[in-house]
Amino acid sequence: MTVTGTSEGPFGWIGAERDRLRGAGLERGLRPRTADEADAGPLDLAGNDYLGLSRHPEVVAAATGAARRWGAGATGSRLVSGSTTLHAELEAELAEFTGFENALVFSSGYAANLAALTALAGRDALIVSDAANHASLIDGCRLSRAAVAVAPHADPWAVAGALAGRAPGVRRALAVSDTVFSVDGNAAPLPALAAAARAHGAALVLDDAHGFGVVGEGGRGAVHAAGLAGAADVVATVTLSKALGAQGGAVLGPAPVIAHLVSTARTFVFDTGLAPAAAGAALGALRLLRREPERAARAGEAARLLHGRLTAAGLAAARPDAAVVSVRAPSPGAAVRWAADCRRAGLAVGCFRPPSVPDGVSRLRLSARADLAAGELARAAGIVVATAPREAVDGGAVRESPARR
Amino acid sequence: MTVTGTSEGPFGWIGAERDRLRGAGLERGLRPRTADEADAGPLDLAGNDYLGLSRHPEVVAAATGAARRWGAGATGSRLVSGSTTLHAELEAELAEFTGFENALVFSSGYAANLAALTALAGRDALIVSDAANHASLIDGCRLSRAAVAVAPHADPWAVAGALAGRAPGVRRALAVSDTVFSVDGNAAPLPALAAAARAHGAALVLDDAHGFGVVGEGGRGAVHAAGLAGAADVVATVTLSKALGAQGGAVLGPAPVIAHLVSTARTFVFDTGLAPAAAGAALGALRLLRREPERAARAGEAARLLHGRLTAAGLAAARPDAAVVSVRAPSPGAAVRWAADCRRAGLAVGCFRPPSVPDGVSRLRLSARADLAAGELARAAGIVVATAPREAVDGGAVRESPARR
Repeated sequence: MTVTGTSEGPFGWIGAERDRLRGAGLERGLRPRTADEADAGPLDLAGNDYLGLSRHPEVVAAATGAARRWGAGATGSRLVSGSTTLHAELEAELAEFTGFENALVFSSGYAANLAALTALAGRDALIVSDAANHASLIDGCRLSRAAVAVAPHADPWAVAGALAGRAPGVRRALAVSDTVFSVDGNAAPLPALAAAARAHGAALVLDDAHGFGVVGEGGRGAVHAAGLAGAADVVATVTLSKALGAQGGAVLGPAPVIAHLVSTARTFVFDTGLAPAAAGAALGALRLLRREPERAARAGEAARLLHGRLTAAGLAAARPDAAVVSVRAPSPGAAVRWAADCRRAGLAVGCFRPPSVPDGVSRLRLSARADLAAGELARAAGIVVATAPREAVDGGAVRESPARR
Repeated sequence: MTVTGTSEGPFGWIGAERDRLRGAGLERGLRPRTADEADAGPLDLAGNDYLGLSRHPEVVAAATGAARRWGAGATGSRLVSGSTTLHAELEAELAEFTGFENALVFSSGYAANLAALTALAGRDALIVSDAANHASLIDGCRLSRAAVAVAPHADPWAVAGALAGRAPGVRRALAVSDTVFSVDGNAAPLPALAAAARAHGAALVLDDAHGFGVVGEGGRGAVHAAGLAGAADVVATVTLSKALGAQGGAVLGPAPVIAHLVSTARTFVFDTGLAPAAAGAALGALRLLRREPERAARAGEAARLLHGRLTAAGLAAARPDAAVVSVRAPSPGAAVRWAADCRRAGLAVGCFRPPSVPDGVSRLRLSARADLAAGELARAAGIVVATAPREAVDGGAVRESPARR
């Protein structure tokens, strides 16, 4: 067989798939930003740099110092050549800060979630997973080969029911949830979830990616704030790429659990260790946050300020429990146009469309950075309101979106 | 229920599992290296820093320069705030160097492999996967929900047979293989594999993690050397953490395939972008390799030198097709003791045990770095020979290992 081009051949189906995505307003493209944009470009509320630390001089210096001292890469798996005393220091300080016995650092939060679920569940396990959980938790459920029950969003009673109804042959059970949901910024009902898990002998695995550094005493995270940190039946995961402004992820838990991951978690055993610059930056940011704990609270205050302005103007925004504020849009296409209008007016916001939204409703997503002044936040809210499509005001988006999907 | 400790409670099973792993010689521990070890510690043949670039001043300067210019992290998903012109530059130069139309950079090679397989296969697909493929390809197969046929190692006829026998309802087919297998350093039979895939209308997905930077003209990789780069039916993946000494991975392929990944690959859409320092280091290393292409050939020469010394002493080592030389050990426990004896004698080597070895045979694994002189390589081989367990000499390990597993 001669392959003549991608319109024929084994990838020929991709053209039709692209047309389908384009027609549904779901095609994506990359818009690389320039280095100057941070100073001269639009105000950036699109990313997850909640504390504004990714460009903080102290964090950048920690990154460059680590690269100079350790080299540009970890050179191998953490089990072979990729563990440095820098990784060990970071793990010790992360565990101490969040209130867990031990921590294990990965090259991404995605890899950390895959590791936790594949190493702690298996063919003989049941995972009860919140319907709005992050893609990496969903992929971890799939990879683990466990039976998976998807519970309605933020519904601990449904979690309890699924755990109670498990077959007698199911030896292990885990309840799995984001602590702060990425898209809407709302918090999971952690105390009730923990009670449900404990009533039925299940472990609790919590992804604190959007709570860590923002929620709780000095940013110790939503798991710490709920009094669950360090419990013998709780494992948490965090990212180093959001509040800490670097790259990577970590699993936090009891020492035997972390040791089990070291020996068996495939995304730990078979991945190159986190680059020293990222580990150094995360450690630098963590130390900065410990010294200036008020940064965490400022992110939450900023989110509440944004939310107040947006809802006062009639937009449908969920009450923020952390640093994320999201505003519903009438359709994927309207969300794209709205985000583009914001950008033209000087504000970068996230534009979330299926499959990045669990309920199929497209949204603008704003990150309320701790390093912004009240005036900048008010200007940002003003731009979102001024560029809003008419259908997004006064609940129109919520009413109309099901019919448009 | 009160949780009293991990010997009881939902993680109580981990203690027994640890005892089982320990008894089988399969428990792992982390041994963090200090920054001084690179200069004053053992000679390092344990990592995958094949060209010795991770600590090259030019590569380190590229990492620190990028962190200063762009910040310590990418701040968000590549689709939201995490794409910079640095990522775009790296992608353009990677594609041009390897001979593909486009490239897409990920936070790890693991994530790149998960992306390629989940976005290109699906429920209606058949993947034919080499039995010795890397864990990340295996996990990609599982996550894709495709039907998976595992072909015997390096057997293109078996691949052809599995493709020919697919059910009529299977609309897409992919043959998937490492180009250079991580554990033994042997090459896949790429021309025969491509012929098998093409004869049956299947796409070819090749993980060139251990070929890129080492094999082919100036290190353009095994896919380029086989004349398959840029073909409309071929997708390759590479890591930025081995020959380039940084962190991350990339998918290389036709423009429509890469665009499809941008819109749909979950480990792209839902992961934070690669940190600027890692992207900068990879770009710096790539430019260095283009200017000094002889570095690639030197890695292969070093491997052949090591292999010659080891086999002359009666050790069972596979002929190296790239920079990896691996030596069979009689048992997991013997491999651990052998590696520890090497370290005491001044040489760091990899120690690979199940599940990191596809055939269950434990091995020492040596990376033949391009930056080492012949005398250093001879000293390394001398240490491996001098510390070898008696059963490893003259084929003992190969004969004895099945009975010991």
